[in-house]
Amino acid sequence: MSDPAPTTIATIAAEVGVSVPTVSKVLNGRPDVAPETRARIEAALEKHQYRRRRGRGARGAELVDLVIHDLGTAWAVEIIKGVEVVAASERVGVVLSDLGGEHRPRQEWLDDVLTRRPLGVIFVQSSLDAPQHRQLATRSIPCVVVDTAGEPPLGVPTVGSANWNGGLVATRHLLGLGHRRIAVITGPNDVMCSRARVDGFRAAMDEGGVRLDPSLVRNGDFFVGGGYGHGMDLLSRPDRPTAIFAGSDLQAMGVLRAARELGLKVPEDLSVIGYDDLPVSEWINPALTTVRQPLQDMAGTATRMLLSLSRGAPPPNPRIDLATELVVRQSTAPPPPGS
Amino acid sequence: MSDPAPTTIATIAAEVGVSVPTVSKVLNGRPDVAPETRARIEAALEKHQYRRRRGRGARGAELVDLVIHDLGTAWAVEIIKGVEVVAASERVGVVLSDLGGEHRPRQEWLDDVLTRRPLGVIFVQSSLDAPQHRQLATRSIPCVVVDTAGEPPLGVPTVGSANWNGGLVATRHLLGLGHRRIAVITGPNDVMCSRARVDGFRAAMDEGGVRLDPSLVRNGDFFVGGGYGHGMDLLSRPDRPTAIFAGSDLQAMGVLRAARELGLKVPEDLSVIGYDDLPVSEWINPALTTVRQPLQDMAGTATRMLLSLSRGAPPPNPRIDLATELVVRQSTAPPPPGS
Repeated sequence: MSDPAPTTIATIAAEVGVSVPTVSKVLNGRPDVAPETRARIEAALEKHQYRRRRGRGARGAELVDLVIHDLGTAWAVEIIKGVEVVAASERVGVVLSDLGGEHRPRQEWLDDVLTRRPLGVIFVQSSLDAPQHRQLATRSIPCVVVDTAGEPPLGVPTVGSANWNGGLVATRHLLGLGHRRIAVITGPNDVMCSRARVDGFRAAMDEGGVRLDPSLVRNGDFFVGGGYGHGMDLLSRPDRPTAIFAGSDLQAMGVLRAARELGLKVPEDLSVIGYDDLPVSEWINPALTTVRQPLQDMAGTATRMLLSLSRGAPPPNPRIDLATELVVRQSTAPPPPGS
Repeated sequence: MSDPAPTTIATIAAEVGVSVPTVSKVLNGRPDVAPETRARIEAALEKHQYRRRRGRGARGAELVDLVIHDLGTAWAVEIIKGVEVVAASERVGVVLSDLGGEHRPRQEWLDDVLTRRPLGVIFVQSSLDAPQHRQLATRSIPCVVVDTAGEPPLGVPTVGSANWNGGLVATRHLLGLGHRRIAVITGPNDVMCSRARVDGFRAAMDEGGVRLDPSLVRNGDFFVGGGYGHGMDLLSRPDRPTAIFAGSDLQAMGVLRAARELGLKVPEDLSVIGYDDLPVSEWINPALTTVRQPLQDMAGTATRMLLSLSRGAPPPNPRIDLATELVVRQSTAPPPPGS
């Protein structure tokens, strides 16, 4: 028995009733094809499970695309550095795109990717919808996801960190200091890493036999503003918490500011623990107790996975979570006496 | 009189005694040409003032290169965002390279740029040496410099900010509060923006009739560590300054930490003023008085200049400095009584 002959562009063109260059234009994300024709060609490509053959480009001309949901934070810098180091060592250029807070790029962005034909795409807290994902697959452009926002598409490798465990160790640290009334400010509820952290928080509270007051669980935005807003609200209550697990270092900075404005001393009156261990967290006042995420390692690992995929070698472990680690500094202490 | 016929690759090949494809390889930064042959071809290209003709690439496949001397700061993020917004609006991809603290990219990087043929290159606090710069010119790849580190190459447009004026207004602010014993921590002495800020500082001191103690003028590194080290040293002196112009927000954070460790209150015992107005500066404790640099605007302006150059239109103003602005927050106050 022999394999059936692979589908060629000519097969697709004949089936749809268009010319070969028209199919080629669609494969290359070019705009000058009527939408209806384009849709029919995409459908035929998908039906035949067409996979474009990739040649190796000239050394130095090869690119990977890096898509970041929000460039505006020190968090993003750590990710970019991790990608840059690995890509530079392979002499692959990194094309950076910022989604400005969105978790899904626009079709226009995808068309440009099809045109520039990178070795692959690294999505950070972002991904494609299923039809877009099929467009990449048809062009044999692999992708990986770092710190997946929602459920990752089937078959796409992901690199994350042990978020559930990070939430657990942060909360155990506060419980170990004697805190019982502990609030948590998470990120957006539709972001997986955020859900995992708050589940780790719940697990530690449960393990410690401490009843959780649901009004002390808040959804923030992972930015300073979210920490400040929820911090002001939580700390203005007569039954205010003695400790806040702030979900991210930026949110922790917002909580610290709220505490200052309300005349509360950290850590004497209030313990605050962050998440990420951004470089700035060591320098702020008080230096922040936090959970270290190995952001550069996560990004570097994802880049190596992608380059391996682009050479046709699927990674041995398509789902990797790197370890998180508690870093104790000066923003946590036992609760005030009598609290 | 007619212009002489333009130099072609064939002219160059004939003159050097090599084949046309060999000249083409050198133009494209390909490695498989002997160094000696390569040097002779570069010399011939330069002698004839050869300028490669550029076609417009496919929409979506066009790139600009962005080279940052050090990716590891919030400062870099603001620059990247400014470039991204303008490039995305023109559907041009941004290839990001990090020099890891160097101010000049390696030849290997330049070879890769010649291979990928971007519309142009944006250098941030970095530039090329003269022969490298000629290599870009020969390939008709324009470049611009943001916040030039050294003297910019002749004919290369630059976008900066009013550093001298920023140093002046920062120092006038401290003088106006009554400070006389004022220290300054600048960046590296070979970085132009750093020299300009300290000259602005000197001008304000001179204008105020205040004698400058040369031992209060320090060269830092623009990072937290530089501010911390010089801060510890300056503030441990019996004749310590009552105010420090920290040269960058990161250095100001280092000074704030040094003050804390030495038991000095800011602004009661010591005034500290930064430079940049990074987003974090508003959130730290105390919120930082600083000089705002319009980093995103600078980067966006440079990107527009570059895209204009790539279409053959030189910018009307090849040297632009955007305005800086004093932002007064909580880290500056009158000096302590009796100081």
